[in-house]
Amino acid sequence: MNPRHDPLLKAFGSDNYAGVHPEILQAIATANGGHQVAYGDDVYTEATREVFRQHFGETAQAWPVFNGTAANVVSLRAMTAPWEAVICPETAHINTDEGGAPEVAAGIKLLTVPTPDGKLTPELIDRQAWGFGDVHRAQPKVVSVSNVTELGTVYTPGELAEICAHAHGLGLTVHLDGSRLANAAAALDVPLRALTTDVGVDVLSFGGTKIGLLYGEAVVVLNPDAARGVDYLRKTYMQLSSKMRFVSVQFEALLSGDLWLRNARHANAMARRLAAAVEGIPGVRLSRPVEANAVFAVLPADVADRLRKRFRFYTWNESTGEVRWMCAFDTTEEDVDAFAAALAEEAAASA
Amino acid sequence: MNPRHDPLLKAFGSDNYAGVHPEILQAIATANGGHQVAYGDDVYTEATREVFRQHFGETAQAWPVFNGTAANVVSLRAMTAPWEAVICPETAHINTDEGGAPEVAAGIKLLTVPTPDGKLTPELIDRQAWGFGDVHRAQPKVVSVSNVTELGTVYTPGELAEICAHAHGLGLTVHLDGSRLANAAAALDVPLRALTTDVGVDVLSFGGTKIGLLYGEAVVVLNPDAARGVDYLRKTYMQLSSKMRFVSVQFEALLSGDLWLRNARHANAMARRLAAAVEGIPGVRLSRPVEANAVFAVLPADVADRLRKRFRFYTWNESTGEVRWMCAFDTTEEDVDAFAAALAEEAAASA
Amino acid sequence: MNPRHDPLLKAFGSDNYAGVHPEILQAIATANGGHQVAYGDDVYTEATREVFRQHFGETAQAWPVFNGTAANVVSLRAMTAPWEAVICPETAHINTDEGGAPEVAAGIKLLTVPTPDGKLTPELIDRQAWGFGDVHRAQPKVVSVSNVTELGTVYTPGELAEICAHAHGLGLTVHLDGSRLANAAAALDVPLRALTTDVGVDVLSFGGTKIGLLYGEAVVVLNPDAARGVDYLRKTYMQLSSKMRFVSVQFEALLSGDLWLRNARHANAMARRLAAAVEGIPGVRLSRPVEANAVFAVLPADVADRLRKRFRFYTWNESTGEVRWMCAFDTTEEDVDAFAAALAEEAAASA
Amino acid sequence: MNPRHDPLLKAFGSDNYAGVHPEILQAIATANGGHQVAYGDDVYTEATREVFRQHFGETAQAWPVFNGTAANVVSLRAMTAPWEAVICPETAHINTDEGGAPEVAAGIKLLTVPTPDGKLTPELIDRQAWGFGDVHRAQPKVVSVSNVTELGTVYTPGELAEICAHAHGLGLTVHLDGSRLANAAAALDVPLRALTTDVGVDVLSFGGTKIGLLYGEAVVVLNPDAARGVDYLRKTYMQLSSKMRFVSVQFEALLSGDLWLRNARHANAMARRLAAAVEGIPGVRLSRPVEANAVFAVLPADVADRLRKRFRFYTWNESTGEVRWMCAFDTTEEDVDAFAAALAEEAAASA
Repeated sequence: MNPRHDPLLKAFGSDNYAGVHPEILQAIATANGGHQVAYGDDVYTEATREVFRQHFGETAQAWPVFNGTAANVVSLRAMTAPWEAVICPETAHINTDEGGAPEVAAGIKLLTVPTPDGKLTPELIDRQAWGFGDVHRAQPKVVSVSNVTELGTVYTPGELAEICAHAHGLGLTVHLDGSRLANAAAALDVPLRALTTDVGVDVLSFGGTKIGLLYGEAVVVLNPDAARGVDYLRKTYMQLSSKMRFVSVQFEALLSGDLWLRNARHANAMARRLAAAVEGIPGVRLSRPVEANAVFAVLPADVADRLRKRFRFYTWNESTGEVRWMCAFDTTEEDVDAFAAALAEEAAASA
Repeated sequence: MNPRHDPLLKAFGSDNYAGVHPEILQAIATANGGHQVAYGDDVYTEATREVFRQHFGETAQAWPVFNGTAANVVSLRAMTAPWEAVICPETAHINTDEGGAPEVAAGIKLLTVPTPDGKLTPELIDRQAWGFGDVHRAQPKVVSVSNVTELGTVYTPGELAEICAHAHGLGLTVHLDGSRLANAAAALDVPLRALTTDVGVDVLSFGGTKIGLLYGEAVVVLNPDAARGVDYLRKTYMQLSSKMRFVSVQFEALLSGDLWLRNARHANAMARRLAAAVEGIPGVRLSRPVEANAVFAVLPADVADRLRKRFRFYTWNESTGEVRWMCAFDTTEEDVDAFAAALAEEAAASA
Repeated sequence: MNPRHDPLLKAFGSDNYAGVHPEILQAIATANGGHQVAYGDDVYTEATREVFRQHFGETAQAWPVFNGTAANVVSLRAMTAPWEAVICPETAHINTDEGGAPEVAAGIKLLTVPTPDGKLTPELIDRQAWGFGDVHRAQPKVVSVSNVTELGTVYTPGELAEICAHAHGLGLTVHLDGSRLANAAAALDVPLRALTTDVGVDVLSFGGTKIGLLYGEAVVVLNPDAARGVDYLRKTYMQLSSKMRFVSVQFEALLSGDLWLRNARHANAMARRLAAAVEGIPGVRLSRPVEANAVFAVLPADVADRLRKRFRFYTWNESTGEVRWMCAFDTTEEDVDAFAAALAEEAAASA
Repeated sequence: MNPRHDPLLKAFGSDNYAGVHPEILQAIATANGGHQVAYGDDVYTEATREVFRQHFGETAQAWPVFNGTAANVVSLRAMTAPWEAVICPETAHINTDEGGAPEVAAGIKLLTVPTPDGKLTPELIDRQAWGFGDVHRAQPKVVSVSNVTELGTVYTPGELAEICAHAHGLGLTVHLDGSRLANAAAALDVPLRALTTDVGVDVLSFGGTKIGLLYGEAVVVLNPDAARGVDYLRKTYMQLSSKMRFVSVQFEALLSGDLWLRNARHANAMARRLAAAVEGIPGVRLSRPVEANAVFAVLPADVADRLRKRFRFYTWNESTGEVRWMCAFDTTEEDVDAFAAALAEEAAASA
């Protein structure tokens, strides 16, 4: 079989456009051959559980699932009774980009809050954290935040600690959508637990796919009192892989050494390089702080249109002309430079 | 990274215990490198759609998902309105082995029928196909059958045609759980479409994992009038892979040549070899016809217990002492012979 | 406004065909006038809670809902986590006659058991009470029984005590669908608590409509540890009446004196009278014991057809020709005698 | 039985605090006696269907349900496929006051829009009417508006026509939550169909309880192409009354003459009287236009607190001190005057 695509071509559409890191593919090959018990009762899964504990602490329990939508839905369902609801930013992925999965597949109501930068604060949480005991109101129970946020911003440990303390004070628990947690930790140069276990996060959706896995995310329960039935829910919500050893071994390869950190640092560095390269280009304005592996910018529509024919990327906001450029673990300096040069050309052509 | 397990060791627990066929791993590597649009808008997925059409006909539309539970739930939800129900054998996987996913994750009621051999017939369908128009009864809409069945039996094209004609005559549609469809087709020496498109099946869950994929099943809509919204439901039910090219390329590797057939024929042959090898052993009785890659047998409890310490397998029925031995694409003649010899030893030790 | 129907005409189709007992209508009128706080924070609801405690014990908490389907669904959802399932007879109303409400509206899987007489036993419960801890199986959590059963049979306190002890021993809880509990208690001449609180039932659906209410059933939690969130679930499942005082005052009228018992005794007596009257008629055979207010019989199809033109009733089983005749609180001796005479006539016409 | 409450005491908390109009109680009594087929196959229900057609046109189909939450949920579920979503104002009752019923009981995602006055416009609809065909976004399908709105404002026929035309142009359908539709029609002095059928509304939740019924709302399908399966969904969502004749006869009494209009006009007039009476009181400011039977006002917290001890009513917005006073069909001029006098007293005491 020959490749159907040009393996040298990169885009700036999403870190999901990237392929699989070679060390991950190698790990899958290593776990292949022979028989292993299906559905997670295998030696690779056992080893991976321990790797998660090393990162997130002794009480951490990790449950691999297939994708990020699922990690979020299983987490939130395990954290709530049927009449309980989830407070999240209006821009949260669970609200905008999962085809209604929390509501449709799991019957979970989201209580959304507009935010300037994709980040919740105690004050913003309070806009929805009310009506406790009122049967007419879906009962607030979980605060869900994303780190990195959907707007490319990063919560610091201090900000998260404040959110968790506030939530816990109200009897709420905290879920963290960490589909890009590796990028956040790398950006702040802190260990993964500094943004999760150490600040009081109760349950984490840990992202693997965007940081180099073939497939695989994990529900990581940090506070065992905050979640019930993850093992059953994972099966019921169609997330139990029969050949689980291969999901697990990918996480082992990612997390037992520093692959997660190398990949995250690199992607973040490429975003900074990209930001620096485009900043001076006439007509182009960075629209948000570049804190992890995303660059948001505003540029003339015709420039964006011509550029998009050369490198695929997404418009974030039709009305303002804001676009999003994502860097991945496999984005190279050459890719960035070629993209910036193309942008400069197209901008000049419009001037 | 070194393997944590003995890659030579085989079991007879499930075809899910097997790993990944080398040609599949190779295909994944081939599709790696560079960027491809996420979520299925890539060249591999496009090619795979065509491969499915070649097998199942021009109107067939294939939607890869992560696992078999999901292929079934997405199929059934796409085939029913919220108030419609699914007729299936009591022993159907959707009823017994999916953690209640149809009911819990999708709100679908199953109307079950006891069967002698895991197979429905027009007469058995009629036990539940009634009450049309009565609002007190969840409305029968879909008949779901499995081929290979959970009891290792195989429906012939004639049997399926009769079921489909009967169902259609009642205004019902037909879903086929084909998690082992390759084995069924190989057993009967017919093409895949002879058991699906050609006999009137409306929607198919096509199994990849048990026949050698790393992961991946597909919802295959054969009759476009029988299913709505598969694309949306796949996302909402958490089954849309971001790096879809890798699910798709596995199916291409499986189905564009004869890999599916080689794997299925081999697994079936190993089951027949196993059946032949154990048939004469005193105290061991084959309890069901060996039609695909499963062998069901009844043997003394102590023999089973000792044998299980040497080769993992499952008890099917605690009360009768019936066990199930599954052969996979990677089960070798040596594996079978070693297993049969071990069984003979343990049986002799009890005599 | 004039009546559109003949208020003297009775049928034998269902105790739901009856209207409202005059004392109930009077109670509604008594509670009318002036304003009362909506949604249950009124003096009538407060009083009714106490009336339920008098019948069912100090820990009993009653939550009125609109209909029996709802009492069952709210009860079962409050007793289960999303991954937990309910064991019930195949003939249970929740399985056969609620349009799939448990599965569709609440995502609850039912694990059904065939029974000879609509009654579960410890042995029959065991057919489904297995697989604890196995994520592939929806986890058995609740045993649901009906008293009176759908086949007109009545569980004794001893039978229920045995079921509850067995269920509790397995870590299961017990739900009783008591849409005709008054009839069962009257039949056995025991107080309501002898069939519920005293034998270990955890949660009860208490029926009001069939025993003379305009509308209204109640979720009655007898064991507070066995149910969570009934107040929230009642609202979320669309069962919180705004003008709750009128549901509550009906229950007060039914239960604070002996109206429930008078109505139940009368309906039961009419069924016995009917059974006695038809027993000797040639070609007519009582097919089940007459223990409460239902009479099941087998008779020639042509006789049934002609009789049905004179008095409405339902065929229970098309294939055997079994029919069901229900008596209500307002069925009179004259109604019964006229019906028996009509049956005798039609039977004679066929002979 | 004696009343437990003072039938002369009125409050201004909600039109749900009122009791039952005497003509409605009389209608229930008229339909009582004798047997009628259960579950809607009775002569009263048949007659009521015709009464609805007289108001809403020949294609209108009315399905009585128990309460307003249910009318909305059944309507919306009948109008959507599982992957489709509903656009509504952030202040909509379905979003804020139904305990999450649309999401939890029916799995329907709401796409909310902030509004100044509780009313949608084509421009506001467009804030959520996008992403058609994008599987990552729950698909907008229905626009839901309330008339009277939750803020006491009333849409004119012109405004509704514009909304319907805009929605239909986008391929969306329109649901109208008419729990107070009678009040809206009375306020504008137009027939009910002028605000529904004639302007293009597809499905209506018609409110009976707040305008004088004991209980009962109706799903009214105006456009048969816009809703599927209402009969089945009504049962499955636990809204099929067994003694349906009594729900139906109430609607007949309400709608076959002018009772609905008398009640609505009276409640609206009382609100206007109240507004006029309080307008001059120092420290009291009407905060919204008084268009139907609700009066919103801002007043000092201590005044509100003292007043509330004399007449029950609700705070609408804690932070601004806004309160809501509702008038019902049974609010008298004396009630209004007494309330206004009490308010004047309390305001004076604070001055």
